[in-house]
Amino acid sequence: MSVFDVAIVGGGLIGAATAFELAPEKLRVLVLDRREPGREASWAAAGMLSPGPDSPDALPLVPLAKESLRLYPEFVAAVEDASGISVAFTRDGALEVFLSPHGEAERDAMIAGHRRLGLSIEPVSLDAARRIEPSMGAAVRAAAWLPEEATVDPRLLTDATLEAAERRGAEIRVGCAVSSLLRDGDRCTGVIAGGERIAARHVIVAAGCYSRGIADESENNWLAHYVPTNPVRGQMVALQPSDFRLRRVLRCERGYVVPRRDGRVVAGSTLEDAGFRNHVTAGGLRQILAAAVEMVPALAGAEVVETWAGLRPGTPDSFPILGPTDIEGLLIATGHYRNGILLAPITARLVREWITQEKTSFDAGIFSPLRFAEGIPNSTARRGASARS
Amino acid sequence: MSVFDVAIVGGGLIGAATAFELAPEKLRVLVLDRREPGREASWAAAGMLSPGPDSPDALPLVPLAKESLRLYPEFVAAVEDASGISVAFTRDGALEVFLSPHGEAERDAMIAGHRRLGLSIEPVSLDAARRIEPSMGAAVRAAAWLPEEATVDPRLLTDATLEAAERRGAEIRVGCAVSSLLRDGDRCTGVIAGGERIAARHVIVAAGCYSRGIADESENNWLAHYVPTNPVRGQMVALQPSDFRLRRVLRCERGYVVPRRDGRVVAGSTLEDAGFRNHVTAGGLRQILAAAVEMVPALAGAEVVETWAGLRPGTPDSFPILGPTDIEGLLIATGHYRNGILLAPITARLVREWITQEKTSFDAGIFSPLRFAEGIPNSTARRGASARS
Repeated sequence: MSVFDVAIVGGGLIGAATAFELAPEKLRVLVLDRREPGREASWAAAGMLSPGPDSPDALPLVPLAKESLRLYPEFVAAVEDASGISVAFTRDGALEVFLSPHGEAERDAMIAGHRRLGLSIEPVSLDAARRIEPSMGAAVRAAAWLPEEATVDPRLLTDATLEAAERRGAEIRVGCAVSSLLRDGDRCTGVIAGGERIAARHVIVAAGCYSRGIADESENNWLAHYVPTNPVRGQMVALQPSDFRLRRVLRCERGYVVPRRDGRVVAGSTLEDAGFRNHVTAGGLRQILAAAVEMVPALAGAEVVETWAGLRPGTPDSFPILGPTDIEGLLIATGHYRNGILLAPITARLVREWITQEKTSFDAGIFSPLRFAEGIPNSTARRGASARS
Repeated sequence: MSVFDVAIVGGGLIGAATAFELAPEKLRVLVLDRREPGREASWAAAGMLSPGPDSPDALPLVPLAKESLRLYPEFVAAVEDASGISVAFTRDGALEVFLSPHGEAERDAMIAGHRRLGLSIEPVSLDAARRIEPSMGAAVRAAAWLPEEATVDPRLLTDATLEAAERRGAEIRVGCAVSSLLRDGDRCTGVIAGGERIAARHVIVAAGCYSRGIADESENNWLAHYVPTNPVRGQMVALQPSDFRLRRVLRCERGYVVPRRDGRVVAGSTLEDAGFRNHVTAGGLRQILAAAVEMVPALAGAEVVETWAGLRPGTPDSFPILGPTDIEGLLIATGHYRNGILLAPITARLVREWITQEKTSFDAGIFSPLRFAEGIPNSTARRGASARS
């Protein structure tokens, strides 16, 4: 039986960043991924690092998002340094554009809301917006400038973070699915993965939308009480313009376009409940392309070089699930929904603090997995069993 | 030096069908393709066999198109018999649908026009149209039923026809680009292909939009005077619905959807002057998907399984270029624009008749290559040379 200090279930950016953060702590860290790591939601993301709320319901997430964005430069520098891979982190700001007849009023409401949250945002005239992004189209009725927003290439970042974690001594097992958690009473003692029993003092579940499907040895999936994730499909398109270069993120209510370092433009996205059917659809592509071309008409002539979809880990309240459980040794770090790339640095730091010290530097209590598992401490297994019968 | 009776430049469906038609005539037939045959316009086509005119300018093409559709069952039977490959030829009719507020008037005008040309078409109520195709959407304002229209899978048909031609004794050379035509005064005596001089009594140019680029040994491209083809890009999408099956072709002014035997739906297309840039664009896909989803709303949820583009061989008057030239031994069979799949049987038969008998069974005089080369018989090489200087 292998023995590790920490076993991380899931090799997406969250798992990789957590391994990278923990490995220097003289901990023996193992990352387990059911296929090639970093090819699920992390691979599918656009990489906009935008801490603003996408709805009023999202307000409680903003402090965590702001803190993670603050950590980003340092996180990227450490990953790039350890991996030798540049991850295309850019702090070029973003333009929020408004296409409706009430664009100016919508813009002003957003500005007021962002300012209440301490987020940098400025109204800009259409002329000024066009100086920021010359390819902006005539359909735009109003615009706001968010100077502190950043982007990163999520595929580069995830691969670099995996590489960096490995160089720091973490072990990464590819194509090694976790079939069960090992449990001994109120303690989680490890996992079974690839047919092997692996002992670990700490098990961190970072398996995105697949987290809730992980059972224990008796095929009881009590874990789902702590991690009730559900897949939320997002479709994406990569475009290659031949005659201009997009400089900035443009975003509207119906979609966004994000420039990549190689000149490509990533356009997205949809929010769909489609189970685990991870593919692009006619309706999804139509919507994404319509929004992209409306914001930046010159994109109509751009080559479609890739289409893909990803399954975000949604949760019942759309907030991440972060922190220790009442099962000793079991910690959750998933459910980041639309914000997994942005929240990776703060998530990794919190997990390190939960494992290595008494107190965290940021109060993440509202994201605790216990909010879903209320009333079932020490009885989750039985309740899970009876719910199945 | 190899010696053939017939060298066909281009292994698309036209070249393949011509080889299939000529091979039984005790002729030694060679097909030359610069890459894998059948992977250009034939591969990209939707396979609607629709003889109606797509504009008033297209009226002179209708008799040729009707004759080719009449030949189709026999052509398909012969190809399937010789190749052992089923090509998914179906005669299920097509619905022409009208989405504009003036839909009924447009429909009635189309019906009158088609009837004058002897084409089968019937007005149908929306209820009747929905019985023909239950997935037809509520945006349709009027419909007409074309009971004699057919479809074929162009990829299967092209591969089968190549196989059938080979089994009848034609030789097919893959990845063998024709770099020059060989000319001796007023005679074309063969080609240079893959670095080899190949003598042929008859050279048939069937190289689609690439035809005009073929020069002679002095790098003089006098051929372009007979074959002034230009690429007209068409973008395509293949969709895989999971919860219904499209039964019929639906077509409107802005696009069409064609069912395939395996349940896929092919949606198209665009008409674009984009040079030889053979790729799909944001604007093209957006337009195709919008038309498809408007005609058949259930397609919004269908998976996008493939996107591609093809370069149709356009011509200055949009008619094909068919027939002997005033260069002895040089015959043209290309420029079929949007109608290459439909016109393959009649084209192959005409070429056989031009080569093996005095007279053709169908008067194709208006499609002669001499209509572009007027006034330059016996002096094309000189004029070509001076035009370059």
